[in-house]
Amino acid sequence: MKKGNGSWVFPNQPTILTTGVVGGPFEKNGLLKDDFDFFYNDLWMGQKSYENAHRVLIEDAVQTALQKKKISPQQVQFFLSGDLINQITPSSFAARSIGIPYIGLFGACSTSMEGLALSAMIINGGGADYVVTGAASHNAAVEKQFRYPTEYGSQKPPTAQWTVTGAGYALIGTREQEVNPAPRIISATIGKVLDLGLKDPFNMGGAMAPAAVETITQHLEDLNIEPSYYDLIVTGDLGTIGRNVALELFDQRKIAIDKSMFQDCGLMIYRDGQPVQAGGSGAGCSATVLYGHLLNQMKGGTYKRILVVATGALLSPLTFQQNESIPCIAHAVAIEWI
Amino acid sequence: MKKGNGSWVFPNQPTILTTGVVGGPFEKNGLLKDDFDFFYNDLWMGQKSYENAHRVLIEDAVQTALQKKKISPQQVQFFLSGDLINQITPSSFAARSIGIPYIGLFGACSTSMEGLALSAMIINGGGADYVVTGAASHNAAVEKQFRYPTEYGSQKPPTAQWTVTGAGYALIGTREQEVNPAPRIISATIGKVLDLGLKDPFNMGGAMAPAAVETITQHLEDLNIEPSYYDLIVTGDLGTIGRNVALELFDQRKIAIDKSMFQDCGLMIYRDGQPVQAGGSGAGCSATVLYGHLLNQMKGGTYKRILVVATGALLSPLTFQQNESIPCIAHAVAIEWI
Repeated sequence: MKKGNGSWVFPNQPTILTTGVVGGPFEKNGLLKDDFDFFYNDLWMGQKSYENAHRVLIEDAVQTALQKKKISPQQVQFFLSGDLINQITPSSFAARSIGIPYIGLFGACSTSMEGLALSAMIINGGGADYVVTGAASHNAAVEKQFRYPTEYGSQKPPTAQWTVTGAGYALIGTREQEVNPAPRIISATIGKVLDLGLKDPFNMGGAMAPAAVETITQHLEDLNIEPSYYDLIVTGDLGTIGRNVALELFDQRKIAIDKSMFQDCGLMIYRDGQPVQAGGSGAGCSATVLYGHLLNQMKGGTYKRILVVATGALLSPLTFQQNESIPCIAHAVAIEWI
Repeated sequence: MKKGNGSWVFPNQPTILTTGVVGGPFEKNGLLKDDFDFFYNDLWMGQKSYENAHRVLIEDAVQTALQKKKISPQQVQFFLSGDLINQITPSSFAARSIGIPYIGLFGACSTSMEGLALSAMIINGGGADYVVTGAASHNAAVEKQFRYPTEYGSQKPPTAQWTVTGAGYALIGTREQEVNPAPRIISATIGKVLDLGLKDPFNMGGAMAPAAVETITQHLEDLNIEPSYYDLIVTGDLGTIGRNVALELFDQRKIAIDKSMFQDCGLMIYRDGQPVQAGGSGAGCSATVLYGHLLNQMKGGTYKRILVVATGALLSPLTFQQNESIPCIAHAVAIEWI
């Protein structure tokens, strides 16, 4: 199980049995629209507040995942979820209606892989038959909290990223529950908090890149493998700036990573011309891209082995106001189609 | 491992090897002052902000725990922590200086047992040699965020609770690392989110009591044991009102719990006459009382088997303003001195 410094190898190969992926109007116009289960056409989603809409996204994604496999919430032992809203209330309020014993997580945009790594640990250790995990974000709820309500129309610099409206949740089970080839969780690396002193919340990709590189380096070292072991190493969400910083850092560390197999969820989800500046972000970005698009690509044979590295900026509006720098983290999970 | 509906049994008996417990000036005047490692005499703790002071509490408690056992952070694989501050920044900023791979949690005041249960799961499954886990709160930082700055001197009703300034952290390891009798983690139950529609943030004990009773009932059922199996069932933090509600609910469910063995961390930590209304609360309350006082009591032979049930109110100031009710949760961990 334990490997090196913060890594786990899962000999029992916990398996992603099914997923639910729900998006908003902006994502419906994006590049990956065929990889979502469904979309809402507006950000209110029939609710009175954006926060309630955020909760609905989570409930929908979880229900969608369970329904595909005809599993009831009563058959699932644990629900691991988190989001960016203060006190992760969308996740906790969703847990109230879902009714599965609940483990609340906070890792900002790294939450998706924090939850998947822990879920794999639980399944691998015999702690559950089924676990549901995932992460979500809602553009208007998150922007309102971290920046300004979008209705203000305040301008953003080109280094800023666009918060994804979306929820990606997965039903994780044991290897035995899926005898056909399926996405198996092979290993994971939990990251350390890194902070190089950057303070600009409008350039979080740049701030998070060193954490991504650190976790990837640690993962390769702990498992004693080369980057080429994977068909794809995909970060979430460094955006344009962060991805370039990461590639430079790999160069400096003399780690040979083929640019074409080093991608970023925040750069995959939207179409050229959508006004997302440096790319997508938010806890729901890597969750929707992995549980929708990337697993579809694996199913289609494009990738056999991928390493998903979700990155999180662990700041708050208050720490920014208090002139603190931005602590960052990245968690990696290796998935193989076998 | 898996038992019933949300419970784990740990055959490998992960062990609490040592703890670090740090408090503030108010706790220094409390009933359990001899069970803390040390205190700060003022809430600033040499920092420029209460949030930084909150972080320092966590760093101190972790360092104290590690030093007692002469373990370096490099020997510890994972740090599981959470608190009540938006985006749990005190925990994340502490993780930055501590340098151990970090798993951020949010369970409000239930975080202490969420972290201990997950740590036991990781150790039991062979996922680490050492894990550090715990929770913390800082009266002024938390009150400022959830209510009003204490300097305003705003009045509170008698049902309100007082946020503990304190951090309780524990070094968890394998059974083999401590051959002498020690606190072993035997089982745990992860709770579901319950919400009976209460909306008063000044009576959180009353809101949380049903969640505590639900988790305790589930735990007893999953493990097929009677309440008398334990020498003590201790909640954190129902306070006066919540404890009475819980006792009534046990009566209604015909679960025989001896009042004297059903205690509450929020009612243990302060002295009669301290103006804490219905008792202590905050993520640091159950963490400091367990990792200080209760383990000392176990060491002294007062208790051999205890069930610690940390309760959390998963609301936010925003959900209160939006007229939502308070979703609550409780997680239970069974510890035996063997």
